[in-house]
Amino acid sequence: MSRMKGNALIAQSGGPTAVINASVCGVVQEALKYSEINHIYGAQNGILGLIKGRLFDLRREKPETISRLKNTPGAALGSVRYKLKTEEDYENVINALKKHDIRYFFYAGGNDSMDTADKVNKLAARMGYDLCCMGVPKTVDNDLPFTDHCPGFGSAAKYLATTVAEAWIDQRDLPSTKIMIVETMGRHAGWMAGSTALAKRYDDDGPHLIYLPEVPFDIDQFVNDVRDIYNAIDRVMIVVSEGIHLADGTLVDQAATAVRDAFGHAALGGGASRVLKELLDREIGAKSRFMVKATAQRAAAHWASQTDIDEAWMVGAKAVEFAMQGHSGMMVTIEREPGPVYKSRAGMVELARVANVEHMVPREWINERGNYVEQPFIDYCAPLIEGQPQFEYHRGLPVYARLEKHFIVPE
Amino acid sequence: MSRMKGNALIAQSGGPTAVINASVCGVVQEALKYSEINHIYGAQNGILGLIKGRLFDLRREKPETISRLKNTPGAALGSVRYKLKTEEDYENVINALKKHDIRYFFYAGGNDSMDTADKVNKLAARMGYDLCCMGVPKTVDNDLPFTDHCPGFGSAAKYLATTVAEAWIDQRDLPSTKIMIVETMGRHAGWMAGSTALAKRYDDDGPHLIYLPEVPFDIDQFVNDVRDIYNAIDRVMIVVSEGIHLADGTLVDQAATAVRDAFGHAALGGGASRVLKELLDREIGAKSRFMVKATAQRAAAHWASQTDIDEAWMVGAKAVEFAMQGHSGMMVTIEREPGPVYKSRAGMVELARVANVEHMVPREWINERGNYVEQPFIDYCAPLIEGQPQFEYHRGLPVYARLEKHFIVPE
Repeated sequence: MSRMKGNALIAQSGGPTAVINASVCGVVQEALKYSEINHIYGAQNGILGLIKGRLFDLRREKPETISRLKNTPGAALGSVRYKLKTEEDYENVINALKKHDIRYFFYAGGNDSMDTADKVNKLAARMGYDLCCMGVPKTVDNDLPFTDHCPGFGSAAKYLATTVAEAWIDQRDLPSTKIMIVETMGRHAGWMAGSTALAKRYDDDGPHLIYLPEVPFDIDQFVNDVRDIYNAIDRVMIVVSEGIHLADGTLVDQAATAVRDAFGHAALGGGASRVLKELLDREIGAKSRFMVKATAQRAAAHWASQTDIDEAWMVGAKAVEFAMQGHSGMMVTIEREPGPVYKSRAGMVELARVANVEHMVPREWINERGNYVEQPFIDYCAPLIEGQPQFEYHRGLPVYARLEKHFIVPE
Repeated sequence: MSRMKGNALIAQSGGPTAVINASVCGVVQEALKYSEINHIYGAQNGILGLIKGRLFDLRREKPETISRLKNTPGAALGSVRYKLKTEEDYENVINALKKHDIRYFFYAGGNDSMDTADKVNKLAARMGYDLCCMGVPKTVDNDLPFTDHCPGFGSAAKYLATTVAEAWIDQRDLPSTKIMIVETMGRHAGWMAGSTALAKRYDDDGPHLIYLPEVPFDIDQFVNDVRDIYNAIDRVMIVVSEGIHLADGTLVDQAATAVRDAFGHAALGGGASRVLKELLDREIGAKSRFMVKATAQRAAAHWASQTDIDEAWMVGAKAVEFAMQGHSGMMVTIEREPGPVYKSRAGMVELARVANVEHMVPREWINERGNYVEQPFIDYCAPLIEGQPQFEYHRGLPVYARLEKHFIVPE
C-alpha cells in the first residue's frame, strides 16, 4: 500500500480528561516508528494554533517527557473551544496544512471535534489536497457513539466513585450532616452521575439516589424519595448530574441557562445541587450540604484508572497505525470483547457518523422510578476503573510532564 | 510502677480526618499488649455514646479490620459534635465510666475535645475515681498548640496541593477559565490554604495568590492583586481560606455568619469563594470559576500521606504507652527532630494547656502583603505530605474497614 510522505500534526480540543495526554503519547510514540512521517508537530490550542501557525516540534521533546504524558492531566499541547464556522475558516485550515506540508492530522476531542475533523477531511478532498485525517476520541462525559466507551470516562468514574465512597463514610460517621448532594458533570448524558453507584459496598451505603438527565426530573417525587430514605435511615446521599431538567426541558439549574458557551451549549455552573439543597432545606429541614467536584473530575490524574490510561494510549497509537494502513476520515473506537474477563481492542467508525451524535445511558439501565441505575450499568462501568498508575514523585506529589514546546520558526 | 486494672475506652470527636482511624488502630494495637487492660471499648458517637452506654467491644473485631483502620476515612467508631456543658453532663460521664469500670480513657479530637478530656480528668480526680485520661490529637486545621503539627493535616495538605496542581494544569491548558478560586477549610488558621503553595513547581504555576485568615482581608488590594497577575499572564489561580475576614472581623462569607454550630463557631458554607467570584466578575469581567472541596479535604484516604498515617498511628500507640507509664491528663504531641532529614517523635503536654488554644500560622511565615506564604512555611509542610499508602483494592476501589461493632449487652 502506498503511503504519503509528509509531516504529522496532533491537536487537542475541548475540555481535558485525565488521560487525553496518554493519547498524545500514543500518537507520538507510534508516529516515531514510520519513516514516511517527517516532522511531528503539536498545535498550541487546537485548530486555532494550526491557523495561527503556532506549531511546535514534538521530536525535540525528551523521550521521558513524552512517556510521562501518560500520567499527566490537562491538555499538554494546549486545548481550545473554537468551532470552525465559515468557509473561510476551513480554507484557512487547509492553507495552514498545505503551508506546513501536514499530511497526517490527528485530532483528539469529543463530538464537536469529530465534526470539525470530518469537515476538514472532506474539504481537503474537495480541494485536492492529500490529507489523512483521524479522530482520537476523548470525553469524560462518555457520550460518543459507536465506541463501547470513551477514554477519559473510566478515570472520571474512578475519581467520582472514590470521592463519593469517602464522602459517604464521612457523612455516616459524623451524623451532623443529614443530607449530602453531590453534583457531577454531564450535560445531557448521565454516565458520570451513574458511575458513582460503584461506590456502594453495603446495602445502606450511599449513594441512595442518583438522578440522570436521561429521565425528566420530578420535583415532588424527588422530595418524597429523599424523605422516605431520611425517615428510614436518618441520612441521605444524593448524586445529581449537572444537566438534570424538568419534563418541559427547563434545567434545574435555571439561573445558568442564559449563559452559553461558544458551541451553543448551556454553560452550567454547578447550580443544580444548590437549588436542590435549598428545596430540601425548605421541605425537609434537616442539615444538608452539597459538593461540586468541578474540574477535578477531569483533571485527577493522581487517581486515574490504569485501564483508561492504557486504552487512551491505544486509541492514539492505533490512529497512527490505521492512518499508515491508508485509512482516513475515521474515528478510532474501543470495542469490548465478549467473555467474562474484561478485554478491549481498537476499531473504527466514519467521522461523519459520529459527529454531533450523543450516546445516552439506555433507559433500561436506569430503574423505572428514574432514581438509580440498574446492575447492567454497574457491570458496564466496573472494569473501566481498574488499576492504579505508578508515578514518579517529587516532594510528595506526582511529577507531571511539561512540554518544552520548541515552536517552529515563522517563515 | 503500679498500673490500674480495668477497661479501656476509645472515643472520637469532631470532624474526621483521613487518618483519625489510624490513631484508633494505634490505641487498640498497643492496648492489646497490656494484661492490665481488660475490655477495649469503642464509644458510638464519642462522649454521647459513653453517656448512653452505646459501647462496643473492639477485641471482637477481626485483627485485619483493626489493621485496615490505618487507611480508612471517616471516624470509624462514630464521631459527634457535642459539648459537655452542665455539671450534670460531667457527672453522667463519670458515672458511665464507673459503671463500665473504665480506667483508661483515650479521646481523639481537636481543641474542644481536649478541653472535654481535661475536664473529665479533673472531675474524676475530684470525685476520687481512679482514671487515666489521655488526649490523642487530630485536626485537618493543624491548629492545636504545643505540637509541631497535627495528625490529619499532612493528608489534607497533600490532597489539596495535588488538587490545586491538577486544577492549575487544567486551567493553563484550556484557557477559557481565566480566574480560578479554590476555597479550603480553615476557620481561624490558614495552614490548609497555605499548604497549596506546595503545588507550585514552575514560576508561573498557580496558585498565584493565597489568602489566610491570619491577615485581615482587604477587598481593594485583592482586586488589584488579581488584576496585576491577570494583566501579566492572562490567568490567575487564587486560594482562600473559608475563614478570611475583613479588618473589622466580618467574614467575607457574610451570609453564613448567622448559622452557628453546637460549639458556637460560625458554620461556614463555603461562601467566601462565591462572594469573591461575584466581586471579580464585576471588577475584572474575565471568565471565572470557584471550587470548594468540602468534606473531601478531610476524607480523601485514597490520597493520604503515609507520613501522616504513621504519625497518627504513633500518637495513638504512644497515648497507651504513656498511660501505662502512669501519665494522665496529657495530650500526646509530635516533636520534629532537628536535622536535615525529617524525623519525628512523640512528646506530651498537659491537656489544660492545650484546651481551647488555637495555633495560628506565624505572621512572618506569610509575606508582607498578606497574599502568599514564605519559604519557611513551605519547608515546614513539605515533609508532612510524603509517601503514598498501599491499599487492598476491590473492583478498582480501595477497601475501607467497616467495624462489626459488637455492642455490650445492656444490663
